[in-house]
Amino acid sequence: MKGKLFGIGLGPGDPELLTIKATRIIESAPVIAYPAPEIGDSFARSIASSLITKNQLEIIIRTPMNLERFPVNEVYDKASETIKRHLNSGSDVAVLCEGDPFLYGSFSYIFFRLSSEFDINIVPGVSSVSACAAASGRPLVLKNQTLSIVPATLAISELRRLFLVSEGIAIMKVGRHLEKIRKVLQELKLEQFAYYVEYASLKGERVSPLANTVGWKAPYFSMILIGKDLDL
Amino acid sequence: MKGKLFGIGLGPGDPELLTIKATRIIESAPVIAYPAPEIGDSFARSIASSLITKNQLEIIIRTPMNLERFPVNEVYDKASETIKRHLNSGSDVAVLCEGDPFLYGSFSYIFFRLSSEFDINIVPGVSSVSACAAASGRPLVLKNQTLSIVPATLAISELRRLFLVSEGIAIMKVGRHLEKIRKVLQELKLEQFAYYVEYASLKGERVSPLANTVGWKAPYFSMILIGKDLDL
Repeated sequence: MKGKLFGIGLGPGDPELLTIKATRIIESAPVIAYPAPEIGDSFARSIASSLITKNQLEIIIRTPMNLERFPVNEVYDKASETIKRHLNSGSDVAVLCEGDPFLYGSFSYIFFRLSSEFDINIVPGVSSVSACAAASGRPLVLKNQTLSIVPATLAISELRRLFLVSEGIAIMKVGRHLEKIRKVLQELKLEQFAYYVEYASLKGERVSPLANTVGWKAPYFSMILIGKDLDL
Repeated sequence: MKGKLFGIGLGPGDPELLTIKATRIIESAPVIAYPAPEIGDSFARSIASSLITKNQLEIIIRTPMNLERFPVNEVYDKASETIKRHLNSGSDVAVLCEGDPFLYGSFSYIFFRLSSEFDINIVPGVSSVSACAAASGRPLVLKNQTLSIVPATLAISELRRLFLVSEGIAIMKVGRHLEKIRKVLQELKLEQFAYYVEYASLKGERVSPLANTVGWKAPYFSMILIGKDLDL
């Protein structure tokens, strides 16, 4: 009998934001796979580290943050082949995913390679969007409002268009795009509604009205949240 | 010393999708508050029921599903006053919220009434959007795509505009709006990308390509997910 493949959402970083289901499956899976940078430790593994024992086999999927500079398909081809071997030999495999597996998750690279052959079980996780909203102390959207989740990497013309269509906006992957985003929000008179959050749920968590972040250096794990009309 | 107020995300319904943090706080809070319909059981309480003991005081906030037909402000004024009394007497209060507290959560009604006076701690939860994506077995968004979360209750002209701007769309609160949504998606040639999910993570969970749901009666807890370009 074939093993089962699990895509496990780990939540935003605080190990207490793991779900009970994620905890149970990580503890019982004989094989654990997770992404890691080219050199150094895996953030995903660090979230679940207290659950992993020496009796579990670990598959480390090393890719750089900047996927364009790397033969990413080869990395995932190889990782998927390794996972496939374990599944075919009857072992369950739990793939650890930061946040939620299906919301911008690198798990999709494995999912699309194996979903036609294997039964894949997704355990949804707390997204970084929810974690940033919790940290900011402001609701994302109320009643019949719409929320757009937008990567900061998009072109200015795209951002401008997207920032106008919904009451709530979550801008992901801010990092080096902070000043570009600020400029667009100022131009649209939206800066006053914007909050900046970095390392939500982690030790270095920091929250500020966007207007007070001039000159800040935003890390990769940062987000800007906008609620245009937070009145009930 | 004043008590602490917690807004606790319970996730989409499966008690195993509670986080460890939510579990810990619910178990230790002397006072638990939660929404319930005018008559009958509370869905929020049912998710956490195995954690609640007779030693905890329960505040039931009864409101009807259709908020327009009811003096909702009076209900929340009264509930907030009761919660305030407990906080002022030094007891922590945990307010249970389906899904994530800041994503369309009724918790906002309490939050805005008490946030100026009390320290409020939000525990983010797994959203119904992530749970529906997990159930559907398809990613929501990849790489630099945008995701729009849109209530089905909006007018057709609004829906049409919103469905065009992003690669991923999650349509919430489908219920009696199923045929309206289908019509708009057909008109925009998007029906082929659409999946229907009801009762995600619960016993009655059901998933289907939207095209196969003609004549179905969608419950309140249903969603349509669209991924226009799920290729890596």
